[in-house]
Amino acid sequence: MSKNTFGRVFQVTTWGESHGPGLGAVVDGCPPGIALEKEFLQRWLDRRKPGQSRFTTQRREKDEVEILSGVFDGKTTGTPIHLMIRNTDHRSKDYSEIRDKFRPGHADITYWQKYGLRDYRGGGRSSARETAARVAAGGVARAALDSLVPQFSIKGYLVQVGPHRANRQKFDLGQIEKNAFWCPDAEAAMHWAAFLDETRKSGNSAGAVVEVVASGAPPGLGAPVYGKLDADLAAAMMSINAVKGVEIGAGMDAACLSGTENADEISMGPNGPVYDSNRAGGILGGISTGQDIVVRFAVKPTSSILTPRKTIDLAGEETEIVTKGRHDPCVGIRAVPVGEAMMACVLLDHFLLDRGQTDSKRGKIG
Amino acid sequence: MSKNTFGRVFQVTTWGESHGPGLGAVVDGCPPGIALEKEFLQRWLDRRKPGQSRFTTQRREKDEVEILSGVFDGKTTGTPIHLMIRNTDHRSKDYSEIRDKFRPGHADITYWQKYGLRDYRGGGRSSARETAARVAAGGVARAALDSLVPQFSIKGYLVQVGPHRANRQKFDLGQIEKNAFWCPDAEAAMHWAAFLDETRKSGNSAGAVVEVVASGAPPGLGAPVYGKLDADLAAAMMSINAVKGVEIGAGMDAACLSGTENADEISMGPNGPVYDSNRAGGILGGISTGQDIVVRFAVKPTSSILTPRKTIDLAGEETEIVTKGRHDPCVGIRAVPVGEAMMACVLLDHFLLDRGQTDSKRGKIG
Amino acid sequence: MSKNTFGRVFQVTTWGESHGPGLGAVVDGCPPGIALEKEFLQRWLDRRKPGQSRFTTQRREKDEVEILSGVFDGKTTGTPIHLMIRNTDHRSKDYSEIRDKFRPGHADITYWQKYGLRDYRGGGRSSARETAARVAAGGVARAALDSLVPQFSIKGYLVQVGPHRANRQKFDLGQIEKNAFWCPDAEAAMHWAAFLDETRKSGNSAGAVVEVVASGAPPGLGAPVYGKLDADLAAAMMSINAVKGVEIGAGMDAACLSGTENADEISMGPNGPVYDSNRAGGILGGISTGQDIVVRFAVKPTSSILTPRKTIDLAGEETEIVTKGRHDPCVGIRAVPVGEAMMACVLLDHFLLDRGQTDSKRGKIG
Amino acid sequence: MSKNTFGRVFQVTTWGESHGPGLGAVVDGCPPGIALEKEFLQRWLDRRKPGQSRFTTQRREKDEVEILSGVFDGKTTGTPIHLMIRNTDHRSKDYSEIRDKFRPGHADITYWQKYGLRDYRGGGRSSARETAARVAAGGVARAALDSLVPQFSIKGYLVQVGPHRANRQKFDLGQIEKNAFWCPDAEAAMHWAAFLDETRKSGNSAGAVVEVVASGAPPGLGAPVYGKLDADLAAAMMSINAVKGVEIGAGMDAACLSGTENADEISMGPNGPVYDSNRAGGILGGISTGQDIVVRFAVKPTSSILTPRKTIDLAGEETEIVTKGRHDPCVGIRAVPVGEAMMACVLLDHFLLDRGQTDSKRGKIG
Repeated sequence: MSKNTFGRVFQVTTWGESHGPGLGAVVDGCPPGIALEKEFLQRWLDRRKPGQSRFTTQRREKDEVEILSGVFDGKTTGTPIHLMIRNTDHRSKDYSEIRDKFRPGHADITYWQKYGLRDYRGGGRSSARETAARVAAGGVARAALDSLVPQFSIKGYLVQVGPHRANRQKFDLGQIEKNAFWCPDAEAAMHWAAFLDETRKSGNSAGAVVEVVASGAPPGLGAPVYGKLDADLAAAMMSINAVKGVEIGAGMDAACLSGTENADEISMGPNGPVYDSNRAGGILGGISTGQDIVVRFAVKPTSSILTPRKTIDLAGEETEIVTKGRHDPCVGIRAVPVGEAMMACVLLDHFLLDRGQTDSKRGKIG
Repeated sequence: MSKNTFGRVFQVTTWGESHGPGLGAVVDGCPPGIALEKEFLQRWLDRRKPGQSRFTTQRREKDEVEILSGVFDGKTTGTPIHLMIRNTDHRSKDYSEIRDKFRPGHADITYWQKYGLRDYRGGGRSSARETAARVAAGGVARAALDSLVPQFSIKGYLVQVGPHRANRQKFDLGQIEKNAFWCPDAEAAMHWAAFLDETRKSGNSAGAVVEVVASGAPPGLGAPVYGKLDADLAAAMMSINAVKGVEIGAGMDAACLSGTENADEISMGPNGPVYDSNRAGGILGGISTGQDIVVRFAVKPTSSILTPRKTIDLAGEETEIVTKGRHDPCVGIRAVPVGEAMMACVLLDHFLLDRGQTDSKRGKIG
Repeated sequence: MSKNTFGRVFQVTTWGESHGPGLGAVVDGCPPGIALEKEFLQRWLDRRKPGQSRFTTQRREKDEVEILSGVFDGKTTGTPIHLMIRNTDHRSKDYSEIRDKFRPGHADITYWQKYGLRDYRGGGRSSARETAARVAAGGVARAALDSLVPQFSIKGYLVQVGPHRANRQKFDLGQIEKNAFWCPDAEAAMHWAAFLDETRKSGNSAGAVVEVVASGAPPGLGAPVYGKLDADLAAAMMSINAVKGVEIGAGMDAACLSGTENADEISMGPNGPVYDSNRAGGILGGISTGQDIVVRFAVKPTSSILTPRKTIDLAGEETEIVTKGRHDPCVGIRAVPVGEAMMACVLLDHFLLDRGQTDSKRGKIG
Repeated sequence: MSKNTFGRVFQVTTWGESHGPGLGAVVDGCPPGIALEKEFLQRWLDRRKPGQSRFTTQRREKDEVEILSGVFDGKTTGTPIHLMIRNTDHRSKDYSEIRDKFRPGHADITYWQKYGLRDYRGGGRSSARETAARVAAGGVARAALDSLVPQFSIKGYLVQVGPHRANRQKFDLGQIEKNAFWCPDAEAAMHWAAFLDETRKSGNSAGAVVEVVASGAPPGLGAPVYGKLDADLAAAMMSINAVKGVEIGAGMDAACLSGTENADEISMGPNGPVYDSNRAGGILGGISTGQDIVVRFAVKPTSSILTPRKTIDLAGEETEIVTKGRHDPCVGIRAVPVGEAMMACVLLDHFLLDRGQTDSKRGKIG
């Protein structure tokens, strides 16, 4: 039950700090015989890569992934796959200033209190840079899912930046790759750009809400009661840096629904049960229904900002702090590929866990 | 990584179905020498017990807990504590009608699809009755925390029923035990009573939002990055029946905050760091700050309702369903003691995990 | 990673003490739809039951097992199966004498040192009585293996009592059920009877070696490198009370073999590879070969003996101890069904784990 | 419950193959603030390094370890420590010959059957080269134990090569570092040298028995009943390549002892209990007594030998095999530092686990 490992049978262990030599993921339990090329993984890493628009950190990292084990002749061998990403643009000098001060809203103070020391360079292990390893691991999970589950796909996007929500009536999935926000509502994306420019100029930062949808997953994934699919997804998303809330389907708004509204009515389609709605977010009793699996999570604003904040230093003296460095004005943007990666890992894990227990046989209806 | 076990070093394994002979929890990893009496556990079970007001199920269960192992001469021995609760009022006949139909919004269909068979009597393992075992286990965790962490306390309450929110300006913790909703806002409780009477009469059900606050926890609990305190809390709460969303501190609203608002500013108090606000919900970087730990979760409305819903049966035929039985019009109410129990278990687990790694030493400030 | 749980996906959690109300096992991860009756489990428990010959303890326990969850209409549901066995003949007064003294060679002193208190009645949790729960759980594993793996069987027997080894030339498996020692060599069984009568009369006890063989297991079970089939078997057997050594195939004698002797030569049979010998004990690189899986373990003599031994008491005073109570003169005898049960649990666990990862597909030869 | 991870709270995940770019270990759960230098780890790796005498493989690997994370300013940070060792002398061409044949007694065939493909270059993941990662991780555990447990030490040595046992009467621990066999009996070492020269010349290989002793460990380590210290040690040692048997204390010979012989009598020393003998190997009921912890394991002879052996190929054709490559005539020699490393990891893990549960408090005697 390693603190830096997640998953039940498909397991990912990550290591590395923001300003050390690099970071990586050991991916264990992958089925053998899955075609896996470095280029396939790189594609996902490139989406998370910093410095792609003016709305993300200007740190320049190529985030090139190396496959150091577990793949032979282009296929997974069933043994651990080690993925490594070297840090190249780590300017530790940027951090000397905050060496003795704690950024409010940041893990600086809790790492110090827990461990009695901390790698102050870029947040060390608490840096969002760790998520690059997750994205690489998620690429392995996607490759396996592509092979095991026909028609499977995962799509992540932003639905809110600061207080501004996208309009679901205007959703066009084709827009997602066309703006800097992975936003299916092109109009919202334009407003967000203006809002974030403003935010950045004023030395501030903004939060966001990410939605990740998995389509084509079979029914029957999830292991009640403490390995519920939604419980594992909640932990996976909440473990991403800066996340403060996780929702499945109707989410927090489920509290507002009446029982009649909440019940997604069922009819019989040509290939099995069909649902009139999806307030459940594709999960009932912790087990997938076969509908889209819908997860949302809120990302708080970056705590590293240019506006001075009241804080204390190691000596216990009260002071102010301004964080220069190179920081994302809205870390939520780059959380999109991370959320997709976590979804892929959790679903593959449950696919394999379910296959172990049930041989992927499903109860017959009709 | 058992599906019916949670926790890392303090671990709880539950078993049992709604209409079998009973249910229970095996609690492993408890420190030795903790005073533990049946009566102490019963106190928490009595809060979750059905049939205590007209707003909960009329099933009459005494929920009497037996301690079958792990306690000797009134103290925990450090070996597994088995807690058992017998079912006494299980009228299986109530369920014969829904034997071949799937309740929309219920785990009926997913259990059938995954396992190819299901215990249709009261939902079997998917019943909220399983949560009695969690409350019993939570009692053990509370006993240990009372002994290990001075001034520690946990308080749960409802902050929303259906679309109606309690007013935080009117919160009086003294009110919590005085109404049927564990609500600190007496006025809201009155309105909710009227709203739920209406809901019940119309053959419907309502959702709710529960908030659980732990005070007095030390800084330094939580194990980044996949054993973050908030990630474990999210999984714990999401694993409770009918929960669709989990929030820490500002939660989903964190997306709306600016970086300056989100940063809980720090000053120096007589006993260490003091924070001007608690948008973080007491957790930064997955590690507790020493502030109140604040978790909220949304409970969807009961899917077992008297209003007919469209569904299918085992033969794949389309039909309607009406669930008679005895069901909670608002399961969120009884989720309050369950949320408290999960909070207690997760915090004790992390207290012990942290003590193992760090010997409970904290980094010095000032 | 619970201390009282074993297994990776098929997981068994046990609870209970020698002189408490009872003991039990929560069996999680069993495939659904497996026929399971109480009578089937009882059959294995009856083999371990005390008081069946003059060579085992005279404590009279019926060891009746109850199935309290996880089985519906005679089939496993895929949810946790709780098996409970009540203690009926626990005469706690027998133990009052040893309350303040530590039996040499017994867990009395280490439990005291670790936990600061101990249940002195019959050893509490350290009693071999705990193994009844393993045997019950093993029955579930056998039922599943019978259904999943055709021609699968497990056979355990004694190969040594005290310094006296059975003669493999005279092995006749038909003899196993015909003597009090589960011994395939009828002659050895007779000698052992005389030897143990002598041992018992002189107020002493004897050790033994148990061999457990699983036939019909498919190749491919085992998960290198820390979930090797032999590593998991070694842990499983070493966790049985009083076990001090575990061997796979040639075992400790493998050190004496030359490389040419050790290599089990391979030829091609009608259904795949055939081996000329089985020094590997059916496991290579931690993965099953399809040959018989052969495990042996040594059980030390009971430490509760009538001959006085030098020891100390709680006050630190030096003294002598004589253990009256009712004890097995050779606990190794009753360890046979326990070893079989552990073998069944480990093999089912690896069958399911392998099916999850590889879909039970095997590399083609020929 | 990762297949390539071991440990409960101090956890080690290894990756890498014999002929890939390298291998490594992610070490998680280490206490923070432990001084750790690359040179300290290198010292242990140098003991396992190939090519140090004519009795080990002539492959020339420097086995230089890099610390890529988890250490800052010379101290562990409490976050994952990644240790990497690059492969430099991997001549893949050596293996082309055995690409389509299975070495008898080797994991070649089982990897093929399980995974449907295999990295035939030097055994891939099944190579003993993987143990370099364990030795590196063991170095971290030693550093932590040195800091946490005063007077703690671990000493490993060979006690048998082929059928030839060392003579315990002639043991002189000072001899261990003075011969190629880590043998405390100088005379035995001389005989073994002659024996192994003979073995090597005749194109054969030999087994061995390794003994590892940990001194100075406190009483109270070990977590009954499935996390017993001896059960975890048995799994740890059995997971080492080519190990076929594991013994604690008297080991398999415990079967030959009488109850009176087996009971290590206890008297009272100036600092607590003192034992007249140590047949228990320092562990009772799965918990350490405070005596020396004594583990032995048998290593079978290398299966890669120059003498032709009967086998089959991928096409299912019967054939012969001769393994040229560069192989250890007695892999048991280099297993000594590996056994020491596993001992260190298991003991640190249990030290931390016990501290979590009991705060390292011990029951008072006297």
